[in-house]
Amino acid sequence: MHTPHNPDFEARVRSSFARQAAMSLIGARLTTVEPGRCVIELPVRDDLTQQHGFVHGGVVGMIADSAGGYAGFTLMPADASVLTVEYKINMLAPADGDLLVAVGEVLKPGRTLSIVRAEVFGVQGDRRSRVAVMQQTLMVMHGVADEKI
Amino acid sequence: MHTPHNPDFEARVRSSFARQAAMSLIGARLTTVEPGRCVIELPVRDDLTQQHGFVHGGVVGMIADSAGGYAGFTLMPADASVLTVEYKINMLAPADGDLLVAVGEVLKPGRTLSIVRAEVFGVQGDRRSRVAVMQQTLMVMHGVADEKI
Amino acid sequence: MHTPHNPDFEARVRSSFARQAAMSLIGARLTTVEPGRCVIELPVRDDLTQQHGFVHGGVVGMIADSAGGYAGFTLMPADASVLTVEYKINMLAPADGDLLVAVGEVLKPGRTLSIVRAEVFGVQGDRRSRVAVMQQTLMVMHGVADEKI
Amino acid sequence: MHTPHNPDFEARVRSSFARQAAMSLIGARLTTVEPGRCVIELPVRDDLTQQHGFVHGGVVGMIADSAGGYAGFTLMPADASVLTVEYKINMLAPADGDLLVAVGEVLKPGRTLSIVRAEVFGVQGDRRSRVAVMQQTLMVMHGVADEKI
Repeated sequence: MHTPHNPDFEARVRSSFARQAAMSLIGARLTTVEPGRCVIELPVRDDLTQQHGFVHGGVVGMIADSAGGYAGFTLMPADASVLTVEYKINMLAPADGDLLVAVGEVLKPGRTLSIVRAEVFGVQGDRRSRVAVMQQTLMVMHGVADEKI
Repeated sequence: MHTPHNPDFEARVRSSFARQAAMSLIGARLTTVEPGRCVIELPVRDDLTQQHGFVHGGVVGMIADSAGGYAGFTLMPADASVLTVEYKINMLAPADGDLLVAVGEVLKPGRTLSIVRAEVFGVQGDRRSRVAVMQQTLMVMHGVADEKI
Repeated sequence: MHTPHNPDFEARVRSSFARQAAMSLIGARLTTVEPGRCVIELPVRDDLTQQHGFVHGGVVGMIADSAGGYAGFTLMPADASVLTVEYKINMLAPADGDLLVAVGEVLKPGRTLSIVRAEVFGVQGDRRSRVAVMQQTLMVMHGVADEKI
Repeated sequence: MHTPHNPDFEARVRSSFARQAAMSLIGARLTTVEPGRCVIELPVRDDLTQQHGFVHGGVVGMIADSAGGYAGFTLMPADASVLTVEYKINMLAPADGDLLVAVGEVLKPGRTLSIVRAEVFGVQGDRRSRVAVMQQTLMVMHGVADEKI
């Protein structure tokens, strides 16, 4: 279990997520926020699809990127903000179902860099199947406020 | 220079792109379609941003994924469709400017897999700076129509 | 738990590993071979190091690549061989200790592609710490013998 | 063209490479060292192969990792050393020929992180074919000497 530096980590993550206009555009919502772990849910909509009618792989990447980034952000100091350095995502199955659930979990928090893993699941009723796995590197930007630059 | 198997590759790619609802949602448009190379442009909008006011890294990934995928698709046979196996993207600079331009280029077309590189640039007036680079693996799905499943 | 297509999977993997001259050069040994899971151990030696005296990141990648590749191979049909399409590895800590242990586990076996995760640990006496995590894509080469071409 | 901070960058890179015992084990040699660009050559030997008789993908990764890492190191300050954060490599063709040549080139040098691309070619007489492409993230470790820790 990870110990957060900032006792207000949850309010901070929720406030930051609320300012990600792109998450609002696709209809993503932040559910769980725990030390080193975040969950984002995305109700599947027709306007999120690619040519085969599944959710676009880039949209799957968006929620994985945000779930991973905010998982990392929960463990960062109060005066820092978070930046995605890079991510790599494998698609395991078509992104299908009523709901996509992205779970980000910190593998290694660091002073300068944090390494995170995210998984995305497709949920249809009782059935839940893994549709993507991601490995991500985040940068801790010390002294940079989490707001519009 | 690559030689396409399908003489109608351009019409096929444009028709497929037009059916990607997610590209329409974010306002992306397909400009160049050449053998082994595609360009997608995305006018920057407030509803595409993350908490610092730059375009969300996942949105950058979306246009890179589509530019790369369609670059690969130009070289595939007429009875095949394209699937993203995985991609890895490095963010080089904040995605800023009036317009983002994603350029996908095939490194190695194959019977079963194609390896592609994409770069994303931020354009502001005359200034053009590289904001992301991606490496991507695509699968050629022989005998699978490029339509809703 | 995965079910292997080939009941002789273990003998097949051990025979293939024994023919990887590069594994012999660095002194790696294959320990566990289970359906969808392989473990490779590497005693740390001075001639495997980089300039800071830790095991070279590329050597860490070598054992992760082989552990992942053979994990995937355990689930492939008897007439197929395995090929690494790509891998992505994050270094979490300096590769240190008496022994490195690479554990490969299949996330999604497929007819054409398999997606695998590998982790590498550094072991020093009772202490075991994670030094690297990898995500890998393998190709199933049907009808290609696992021998010198 | 990149401008190095450290006028002695070439001597520094060559000295560091000479202390990478793992490069000596596989017989790799550092040829070109320019600002933001390094080339490593590896004569193909039987003891570097995998089960099909080609050079092991992990060995290809080793020379790509070192070529990329040292390309980045050429642009770092004299009081810093270099660390590989992560890399992702796609295999494009079997690593074959008399000689492998890995070329690392900096895409974006930074104060804390540098992003690098590497390509590996197989050379057989006059023929030169691309066998792998890599994207890599390096960390600049300020105030850490490039020597045994």
